Parts: sequence; C-alpha cells; structure tokens
Amino acid sequence: MVEKKISIAVINRLPKYLRYLEELAKEGVKGVSSQELSELTGFTASQIRQDFNNFGGFGQQGFGYNVESLREEIGKIVGEDMLKNAVLVGAGNLGKTIAKYPGFRNVGLNIIGLFDRNPNNIGQDIDGIQIQDVKNLENFLQNKKVHIGIITVDKESAQDIADLYVKYNLEGIWNFAPIDLDVPENVCVENVRFTESLLVLSYFLKNK
Amino acid sequence: MVEKKISIAVINRLPKYLRYLEELAKEGVKGVSSQELSELTGFTASQIRQDFNNFGGFGQQGFGYNVESLREEIGKIVGEDMLKNAVLVGAGNLGKTIAKYPGFRNVGLNIIGLFDRNPNNIGQDIDGIQIQDVKNLENFLQNKKVHIGIITVDKESAQDIADLYVKYNLEGIWNFAPIDLDVPENVCVENVRFTESLLVLSYFLKNK
Repeated sequence: MVEKKISIAVINRLPKYLRYLEELAKEGVKGVSSQELSELTGFTASQIRQDFNNFGGFGQQGFGYNVESLREEIGKIVGEDMLKNAVLVGAGNLGKTIAKYPGFRNVGLNIIGLFDRNPNNIGQDIDGIQIQDVKNLENFLQNKKVHIGIITVDKESAQDIADLYVKYNLEGIWNFAPIDLDVPENVCVENVRFTESLLVLSYFLKNK
Repeated sequence: MVEKKISIAVINRLPKYLRYLEELAKEGVKGVSSQELSELTGFTASQIRQDFNNFGGFGQQGFGYNVESLREEIGKIVGEDMLKNAVLVGAGNLGKTIAKYPGFRNVGLNIIGLFDRNPNNIGQDIDGIQIQDVKNLENFLQNKKVHIGIITVDKESAQDIADLYVKYNLEGIWNFAPIDLDVPENVCVENVRFTESLLVLSYFLKNK
C-alpha cells in the first residue's frame, strides 16, 4: 500500500489519529472533517489532509471522513491488524506493567514469553504466562516464531539481550533501557525514554 | 540564559546530549568534538553546532568541547540541578517502577508523595514513602510545595487528577495515561505514550 517514503513525523502522528478515531467511534460519531480532527489533535487541518494524502487521501473533500473506515485504514497502515509475537526480558515492575496492559493486545502485541534473572520473579504467573529464567531465552527463540523483543532490563544488560534478539532474527525491538542499542539496519528499534521525557518537562519548568 | 525561543526539536535533543556526555565523563574522556558527538548521537555535526549555538555555543571552534563543563551547562539548561518536588497518583506496577527508579533522582526529581485508590497498594512502603489513599491527595497538595504531578492512573481517572494538580498550582504534569489532558496553557504537560510508541514499531515491521 505504501509506495513512497513516508517521513517519520507523519508516522509518529498516525497513532494519535488512531486514538482519536477510536474515541469518536466509541461515541458513535459517523463522520469527521479535517477541521474537527484538527481541534481534537492540535495538528492543523492542512497538515492532516497532507498526512492522509500520503496514503491516498481516504476521504472525500468537502464530505469529511467516515470515522469507522478511516480508523480501519489507519489501523491497517500501522499494522494493528497484524498479530506480532513478542518476548519480554526484564519482568520486574515495568516488565509486569507491560505484560499486563490489555491495550497492547488490542494493537496486535501477543506476548508469548517473559524472562528474568531474579529468582523472586522467576516462576510468577502474569496473566497466564510464567516468568522463565533468562537462561531459557535462547532456547525459546530457537523454537518459536517471535517478531518483537521487548527490553525492560537495566542498561548494563540491554545490549546483550538485543544481541540475542538479532541472532534469532527478530524483526523489531521495543527498548525501555536508557541506551542506544547497536543493531543491524534491518532490525527496527523503537525506544521509550523516561528520563529524556522527564528532562524535557524539567526544561519547560525551568524556562517558562 | 535562554533569551530566544528554542524549538521543541532542539529541546528534545538536549537530554540525549546529556546522556552521552555522562557516559563520556564516566569513561574519563576530557574533550569531545562535534564530529565525535555526531558519531555517538546520530545527529550531524552541523546540527549539533547549531543546537549549541542556541545557548551561546559552549565550545571553541577547532578545539572541541570540554566534556565536564558541557555536561554541566546542558544539565543546567534542562534544570537537572533544580530540585523538583513531585507527587505520583497511581501506585500500581508502573507507578512503583517510577517511584523506585534511582535515575530520576539524579535529574532532580524528588517524589514526596505516592497515592492510590487500591486498598492493596495503600500503606505499602516504596523506598521510604508510604502509599496513601488518593482521598488524602487534595489535603497533601494544600500543605506541601509540589512542582510536578505524575499521572500513572488509567485514562478514565487521569483528567480528574490533572484538574486537582491544576487547582493547586502545580507547574508541570508528567502524564503516562493515554489521553490528552485539558489544562491551562501555563501548565506544562509531558506525555509518555506507550501504545503510540508500539504502533510506530508496528508500522516499521509492517512496511519494511
């Protein structure tokens, strides 16, 4: 479907559109204009139309967009409809939060393995999945089809886990450790950076 | 120090510079060029020099930057040196992770209150702070100087908590709930968006 190179800025906006379209669909709203989407998202109406034009435009000018079909189209573009098997290493508080969050399942994340090195965590059951010793990770990756590797270990261990994910041909890494992972170009890495986010807030408090 | 309007893109890059400068300082490196910083961060050397020029430039052209003083200067700009009292509402797994993470204290975050509505969490001690009933939040905010409010509750409760933070004149909100909070313009909101991050990863897996 996507033929030309889409900029990362556009891609970063797609999940936000999706979030608002889901809200609108839940409220039973059938149609929405780019102007209305602008008021919800804070992006300009022309920005929104430009973004959508990257994917063929979706709507009819002047008639607005059909909420349900727009939601479905954008959902397909971001791959919400694609089941992605995932493993998670680092099943402490953060790892458990992620493993338990039902919203991720709604967007296709299917966590099939949880791993930790802490004996206090190993053996615990998180929504039907038992936390295993991280020593079993390599064997697990050898035997299962896994698409995404989640990293919620400390920064000292993160690269080792990433190396294993790369060795077993995982396609993407969702990284919560505060380091830049060194991986081949064909492996997608998406980082969640708590400290950087906090420092941006701190900047605005200091400079407002 | 900051006199002109700095773009959000520049501000978003500052924490990354800081992270690498801390690594370099730890390794005992004294000086660094914009070229070396470029290799570490992935930003171009000219981008880095432009960014630094927003704040007076820091270094001497041709001699590179002094790691320790650059780290200190950027730390001051982002307000790392400023102690920010914070409360957190939603002391489940995610809230506990945040409350326990030592790295946030290093950048000036001083969590002084933890609140939850779940009786199983209330009364638990997290690194010396007892989780209180969220019913006590308003009284707490009335009596303490709090700068930052952290929101780790579900999206249904997030706006109510934000309203309380606004009522008691908190300066900034660090929001982990998947909604856009409605707050006055003088209140800074920084969002951490797990699902949006996951969907960006999902997009790249689907379209690579």
